[in-house]
Amino acid sequence: MPSSVTFVNILAVEPDQQQALIELLNEGTERVISKRPGFISVTILASLDRRRVINVTRWESADNVKATQADPEAAELAARTAEIATPDPGIYVVAGEHTR
Amino acid sequence: MPSSVTFVNILAVEPDQQQALIELLNEGTERVISKRPGFISVTILASLDRRRVINVTRWESADNVKATQADPEAAELAARTAEIATPDPGIYVVAGEHTR
Repeated sequence: MPSSVTFVNILAVEPDQQQALIELLNEGTERVISKRPGFISVTILASLDRRRVINVTRWESADNVKATQADPEAAELAARTAEIATPDPGIYVVAGEHTR
Repeated sequence: MPSSVTFVNILAVEPDQQQALIELLNEGTERVISKRPGFISVTILASLDRRRVINVTRWESADNVKATQADPEAAELAARTAEIATPDPGIYVVAGEHTR
């Protein structure tokens, strides 16, 4: 098991809801996710065609992800997210990194 | 137009081909993509269920992405990638970043 994992949620959204989704994710990250044990960082990516948002969260371990998914505040945030977007979540590991 | 953009390619792959795809992307990044004008960085994410790889590349501008897509070496790499995976590419901007 790798020591650090990346939780990626690929969210499909109607273009007119993309901004609301971004605000919900930023607010939820600030208020809930960033306070969770094992949280390292999050990057929220918005597609230029406005049909997708990708939430990339780094955690110290897969156990931190599981514990967060079971947390009531995080579950409530996930439920609010699912009201305006279609989530496609998964756990990933970094398989390559290159910089200029 | 934002000054920096993120090209994200969500690649669906058969589990027994995930490792070959990761090697192709790492090799292609090293040899071709990292040499292109405007390249900043790439992160290659492999899903634990082995069914996906997400390639996240940061560029100085959307024009750099378009020029790279038109480059013969990069197009050949994209064609080889499409032989073993189903690509879903898009251009994104960072809409939020949080760290612990």
